[in-house]
Amino acid sequence: MTATQATAETDALRAGFANVRALSVALAAPLSDADATVQSMPDASPAKWHLAHTSWFFETFVLRDHVAGYRAYDPAYAYLFNSYYEAEGARHARAARGMITRPSLSQVLAYRAHVDAALADALPGLHAEARALVELGMNHEQQHQELLLTDALHLFAQNPLEPAMWAPEPKVPVAMPGPTGWIEGREGAVEIGHGGGSFAFDCEGPRHVVWLAPHATADRTVTNREWCEFIADGGYARPELWLSDGWAWAQREGVAAPLYWEEQGGVWTRFGLDGRRPIDPAAPVTRVSFYEADAYATWAGARLPTEAEWEAAASAHDPAGGNQLDGAGPVEPRPSTSGPAFFGDVWEWTGSAFRPYPGFRAADGAVGEYNGKFMSGQFVLRGGSCVTPRGHLRASYRNFFQPEKRWQFTGVRLARDL
Amino acid sequence: MTATQATAETDALRAGFANVRALSVALAAPLSDADATVQSMPDASPAKWHLAHTSWFFETFVLRDHVAGYRAYDPAYAYLFNSYYEAEGARHARAARGMITRPSLSQVLAYRAHVDAALADALPGLHAEARALVELGMNHEQQHQELLLTDALHLFAQNPLEPAMWAPEPKVPVAMPGPTGWIEGREGAVEIGHGGGSFAFDCEGPRHVVWLAPHATADRTVTNREWCEFIADGGYARPELWLSDGWAWAQREGVAAPLYWEEQGGVWTRFGLDGRRPIDPAAPVTRVSFYEADAYATWAGARLPTEAEWEAAASAHDPAGGNQLDGAGPVEPRPSTSGPAFFGDVWEWTGSAFRPYPGFRAADGAVGEYNGKFMSGQFVLRGGSCVTPRGHLRASYRNFFQPEKRWQFTGVRLARDL
Amino acid sequence: MTATQATAETDALRAGFANVRALSVALAAPLSDADATVQSMPDASPAKWHLAHTSWFFETFVLRDHVAGYRAYDPAYAYLFNSYYEAEGARHARAARGMITRPSLSQVLAYRAHVDAALADALPGLHAEARALVELGMNHEQQHQELLLTDALHLFAQNPLEPAMWAPEPKVPVAMPGPTGWIEGREGAVEIGHGGGSFAFDCEGPRHVVWLAPHATADRTVTNREWCEFIADGGYARPELWLSDGWAWAQREGVAAPLYWEEQGGVWTRFGLDGRRPIDPAAPVTRVSFYEADAYATWAGARLPTEAEWEAAASAHDPAGGNQLDGAGPVEPRPSTSGPAFFGDVWEWTGSAFRPYPGFRAADGAVGEYNGKFMSGQFVLRGGSCVTPRGHLRASYRNFFQPEKRWQFTGVRLARDL
Amino acid sequence: MTATQATAETDALRAGFANVRALSVALAAPLSDADATVQSMPDASPAKWHLAHTSWFFETFVLRDHVAGYRAYDPAYAYLFNSYYEAEGARHARAARGMITRPSLSQVLAYRAHVDAALADALPGLHAEARALVELGMNHEQQHQELLLTDALHLFAQNPLEPAMWAPEPKVPVAMPGPTGWIEGREGAVEIGHGGGSFAFDCEGPRHVVWLAPHATADRTVTNREWCEFIADGGYARPELWLSDGWAWAQREGVAAPLYWEEQGGVWTRFGLDGRRPIDPAAPVTRVSFYEADAYATWAGARLPTEAEWEAAASAHDPAGGNQLDGAGPVEPRPSTSGPAFFGDVWEWTGSAFRPYPGFRAADGAVGEYNGKFMSGQFVLRGGSCVTPRGHLRASYRNFFQPEKRWQFTGVRLARDL
Repeated sequence: MTATQATAETDALRAGFANVRALSVALAAPLSDADATVQSMPDASPAKWHLAHTSWFFETFVLRDHVAGYRAYDPAYAYLFNSYYEAEGARHARAARGMITRPSLSQVLAYRAHVDAALADALPGLHAEARALVELGMNHEQQHQELLLTDALHLFAQNPLEPAMWAPEPKVPVAMPGPTGWIEGREGAVEIGHGGGSFAFDCEGPRHVVWLAPHATADRTVTNREWCEFIADGGYARPELWLSDGWAWAQREGVAAPLYWEEQGGVWTRFGLDGRRPIDPAAPVTRVSFYEADAYATWAGARLPTEAEWEAAASAHDPAGGNQLDGAGPVEPRPSTSGPAFFGDVWEWTGSAFRPYPGFRAADGAVGEYNGKFMSGQFVLRGGSCVTPRGHLRASYRNFFQPEKRWQFTGVRLARDL
Repeated sequence: MTATQATAETDALRAGFANVRALSVALAAPLSDADATVQSMPDASPAKWHLAHTSWFFETFVLRDHVAGYRAYDPAYAYLFNSYYEAEGARHARAARGMITRPSLSQVLAYRAHVDAALADALPGLHAEARALVELGMNHEQQHQELLLTDALHLFAQNPLEPAMWAPEPKVPVAMPGPTGWIEGREGAVEIGHGGGSFAFDCEGPRHVVWLAPHATADRTVTNREWCEFIADGGYARPELWLSDGWAWAQREGVAAPLYWEEQGGVWTRFGLDGRRPIDPAAPVTRVSFYEADAYATWAGARLPTEAEWEAAASAHDPAGGNQLDGAGPVEPRPSTSGPAFFGDVWEWTGSAFRPYPGFRAADGAVGEYNGKFMSGQFVLRGGSCVTPRGHLRASYRNFFQPEKRWQFTGVRLARDL
Repeated sequence: MTATQATAETDALRAGFANVRALSVALAAPLSDADATVQSMPDASPAKWHLAHTSWFFETFVLRDHVAGYRAYDPAYAYLFNSYYEAEGARHARAARGMITRPSLSQVLAYRAHVDAALADALPGLHAEARALVELGMNHEQQHQELLLTDALHLFAQNPLEPAMWAPEPKVPVAMPGPTGWIEGREGAVEIGHGGGSFAFDCEGPRHVVWLAPHATADRTVTNREWCEFIADGGYARPELWLSDGWAWAQREGVAAPLYWEEQGGVWTRFGLDGRRPIDPAAPVTRVSFYEADAYATWAGARLPTEAEWEAAASAHDPAGGNQLDGAGPVEPRPSTSGPAFFGDVWEWTGSAFRPYPGFRAADGAVGEYNGKFMSGQFVLRGGSCVTPRGHLRASYRNFFQPEKRWQFTGVRLARDL
Repeated sequence: MTATQATAETDALRAGFANVRALSVALAAPLSDADATVQSMPDASPAKWHLAHTSWFFETFVLRDHVAGYRAYDPAYAYLFNSYYEAEGARHARAARGMITRPSLSQVLAYRAHVDAALADALPGLHAEARALVELGMNHEQQHQELLLTDALHLFAQNPLEPAMWAPEPKVPVAMPGPTGWIEGREGAVEIGHGGGSFAFDCEGPRHVVWLAPHATADRTVTNREWCEFIADGGYARPELWLSDGWAWAQREGVAAPLYWEEQGGVWTRFGLDGRRPIDPAAPVTRVSFYEADAYATWAGARLPTEAEWEAAASAHDPAGGNQLDGAGPVEPRPSTSGPAFFGDVWEWTGSAFRPYPGFRAADGAVGEYNGKFMSGQFVLRGGSCVTPRGHLRASYRNFFQPEKRWQFTGVRLARDL
């Protein structure tokens, strides 16, 4: 690599880093100190915590480990803002993140600025391994941007006043999507997974062969209108449509519609980042659990795609296309206005449990805890959502959540055997 | 009553009201929006909620019910800030008070200012029944002032950074109290309870006769040094000292010292409104549960006084004396510097269950829910604490908490049979 | 005492002991090994456990402690059948008593026979202290006889087949009781409590003075018909009638009628030791909690009596009278056929928390754990029930349960201030 | 099919049915009425319930549905003994199965005899669909035979007396197995799953192609001695070896050794169907959860096999070979005395989540609830155990449990990538 190339690469990394870091701050801008502090459930984290934890990640794995003489901004922060890295020692209990009223939001923003400056200074001198950690940290932060928004939304949903994060966008009339079309999938030996050569999370590889039986995937995700038909047909009241655990969950929790839906005067409304508004029948349904997705698919005489089927189909599409996050502002899934899209709008539940690919080995050290230790009890989601920062996704990208979780922008694409 | 008298009475009520309302705001001054919003446990409420709820009390029971044409400041607030009045309709769940990041602290302060102005305007025209409700509201707010401080302290105790509410006061050297002295109590038929003629909560009356057996009460409360002896003698490890429910509670919760105590380098420290500091051996022990108080008394070969014994002894003392709250600033129990005192420093657990006095009847309507419906499962405490606003107490005053509660400034006075 | 007197006393004790021991076996006769083994809830114990624990009590506190050379029947039984005596060491967890399928019921009966024989042999040589423990053990066993029946009933109530313990007795037509009459109570200084001279549990004394305000107690307990009126008037749906804890309990548990009541074809039925049958409108209501009793009293414009009021009134009545347990066979509360009765039929909730009397001190050693350590969180009940063995009661007798418990034969007598 | 063939087939089915039914009764023979009634945890069922439920299965799906004029033995039994078939209506709560002290064990055995006779009578006239249900019922009952033993063992383990189901067998000295050998597995496109033509559960098919990457499986399962090394090396105390959910589970439950292990005088013992005895270092470890199995594999530098790898390797072996259940009597895993075995001794945790095969569709009606609705949250186990009735297994056989379950005879075979 020539010096010019090296400089160009450094400049690109610096710019990318600056963009990612700025977006987090912009997303949190509508939040007060209190909004950014409260934790609405153990699964969710306060916005302030997201802002601090992502900074701690850079501070720890890049500045502390790879920059000689760097001194921690505040030695107490490692305890407060480590998420789950056992190798990094004891840490504040996850369910008690909302107790941390101090440091304040503005103190956390100062911490961010300090880390940003230190990292920008250090960038030119970082060797490849450290740069890879910067890139990992940027992708890590993008994941937290999505969580920051869904967690803030969950918090606002607990408030009877239902504050909106942003004013709604003007609604553009869109034609109702037609009936689902079916895309015949590839059969036989197919390669999936990330093959290296550019950034990917460890769990996306190694690239490997899977064998696909004859099948087809839907050319779009399920819409709100279709979900209303499911409800009207007793979808939430017929145990034969449900997995046993799913039925028990729905009965216990009283689940009878997607999260944040409420019937008001005979009209279904939903709560979103732009407040409470009537559902858009043409838009993809979202905030449903795997259990609901699976029950819907059974009701529809179909099934969920496997992650391999999904990836094989999606690899022909542009991962930077579709309705993804371009900046701070109101976002919700939107009716598709063009042909089949596999990226954006809603994360699509697959029928695949999140397990390691053949040959997978977690990295050594704390960073090795990133994904591998979560490979039980979760299902894979694919395709990203309207709150995934554009540029973050790949066809091989694997998201994962427990089957009852539904506070993310999750939706449903059908598949069937041929 | 002459017009002059009426004006003087109005002026006094207006001044009292203004003082009470100002103190609440002063106590909350060190708190950020986030500090004032978070709920650290279901028993505690956010400071913001205390500030709003006490305002809602005046707005509802005085302005709405007794001031023609008054319109609610915000119709949503009744749902948010009603505490437990079933007669006032549905309300936000107690355990979810910490989810209310909006309205903000400054919006709540604006609400307070609005209610203050409306009530000041209305005061001259209020008839006696409404004035009595103003007085009730002032006493109600004083109770919430105490809770505001103990709840904020509990919140800060959940933060590993242990922020202090106020800087500590300079420590004044005090002589160690000598051995407990015993005050022989009155025997036979004794009158206790409030007899009317001035403000009291409904549960303090009617005044009635009780029969007291020969007994004595200690001339001071138990000190931290004495409590350390109890610990050192295995007090928390000997089931024979404990009530059965108390032992089960201590084992389940891992209780082995007063709340907020921590041994650091062989020295017992405690966390208080002035941060974490070594315990003062001469000061009254505080933040202990009824179960702990009872076990201590058994260990000491004594018992807790009944509330009647306490009141009979205390009625000779000045309820406005001792270490009580005079304004915003660091407060903690202090070593006594004079003779026997029954008021201030720490609430004293009695051995009496909180039950109605003979002839007690709750008031009609929502205000009737103030005390009567809590007359099961709680024990009476007497005497007020260092965070009770001076002027709030009476010899007949009955406070009450469940036997495992210990985040209030609670302590122990011994008694024994003669 | 002459030798003749001593022999007569020994004979009386032997006969009493034999009778008590025989009744337990007779009560358990309808139970299979499985019936006698299963634990239906943590509060209840298996019949086999009652049979074994009462034997362990004699074996431990009499034979082991006072009979030289006695060797334990089975050393493992102390661990299995100690109930709650901390001083007797570690023991099997209360909630896991139903796991003990071995020893079998017949093995436990053999254990009983062994203890019976050993104690009969030892009786003539026992000194006074040991004889007092025999008497305590007999009274202890009578308490467990009552529990054996109520626990077995609770178990059968969990079985959809609802097996009856005994066939029902033929129903005798009885006139409906007239309106409640009121008995004016004694006023001023009144002595209550047990004064010694004969057997009583430690918590019944010392005898002491209480001061009673003017009051009256009802001349009978509340009937099923009156309870139906309470239900019909929305008694279970009006929070203003309830203590706060009681209302929360009833909502959480879905309580809307006495335990084991079920509406079948418009008729209220109840499940009892004689199976499921229509309620008898004239009989005392039973299997209600303190919370329900208190709410009923509020609805009726009355209150519950204090235990002192109850005892002052009851002391003029025969504690061996009324509907009490005379042997194995179907029993349920019955309509009164004569004048005011204070004993039998149903335990009467009082408004008094179970707390020590002035001067009370628990005995030393394990037996001292009998009552004293339960003196928090419970309310006193008076008067015994239809499953209390006749001869067990006294006017000073204090039973106690937590306010939400209702699987005993508990009922309601009203009182009011004059 | 000729008449002779038909008769022979009927005879074979009748004999098989009789054998299966007799074995259940023989297995339960050591159990008392109480032993057979108590439920030791929600996951386990009483032996009596297993005996009754398997009879209900035949009565409902064969006699009721396919034998004209059959009348239910007892109409109440459908409610009591339906396990989880939503299509069969309301049923007794799973966690309350231990409350059913009536019908007694002998009444349940009478019910069994009735069903046996009715089915034997009906057999000759049953058409193919009904005969298939008989075969399903027989396989269903074999599954419950395994559960009956593991559930009874769990019950006995709750009893401090630790009763043994059977006396131990004389121990035969066996050479310690040598180091693990590695069997290279098949690569590329491989067919797995059941292809029809004989009995299999629905979830075993359809037969389909999977693609296997280069790998090897161990030639035997992990031994107790190896597990002791894992313990000694801190295996239960090093979070880096564990899945995140597994670590949380082990911490919460205090798991530090296989189920029923106890260190006594420096020697590891285990509780089994033959009572408590020292572990056999040469025998396969058993009663470990998936989480423990996975942590062990990580510690050993290996991984668990996928179910496809396992099946591809096992299909060359005899599914009726190895240490399986041949009759009532003490059984525990035994050291292998010959070459590689894939069947018997212990169920082997695979790394595969229990999910449907390509093209899987659940059967219509209640029987369709057999497996399909459990396809979330569970991991596949392969190979059967020492309490699996011989003849029950196939290479395609899929067992499944939640990852924390460990009261079955579960063990570990390692695999690794090549």
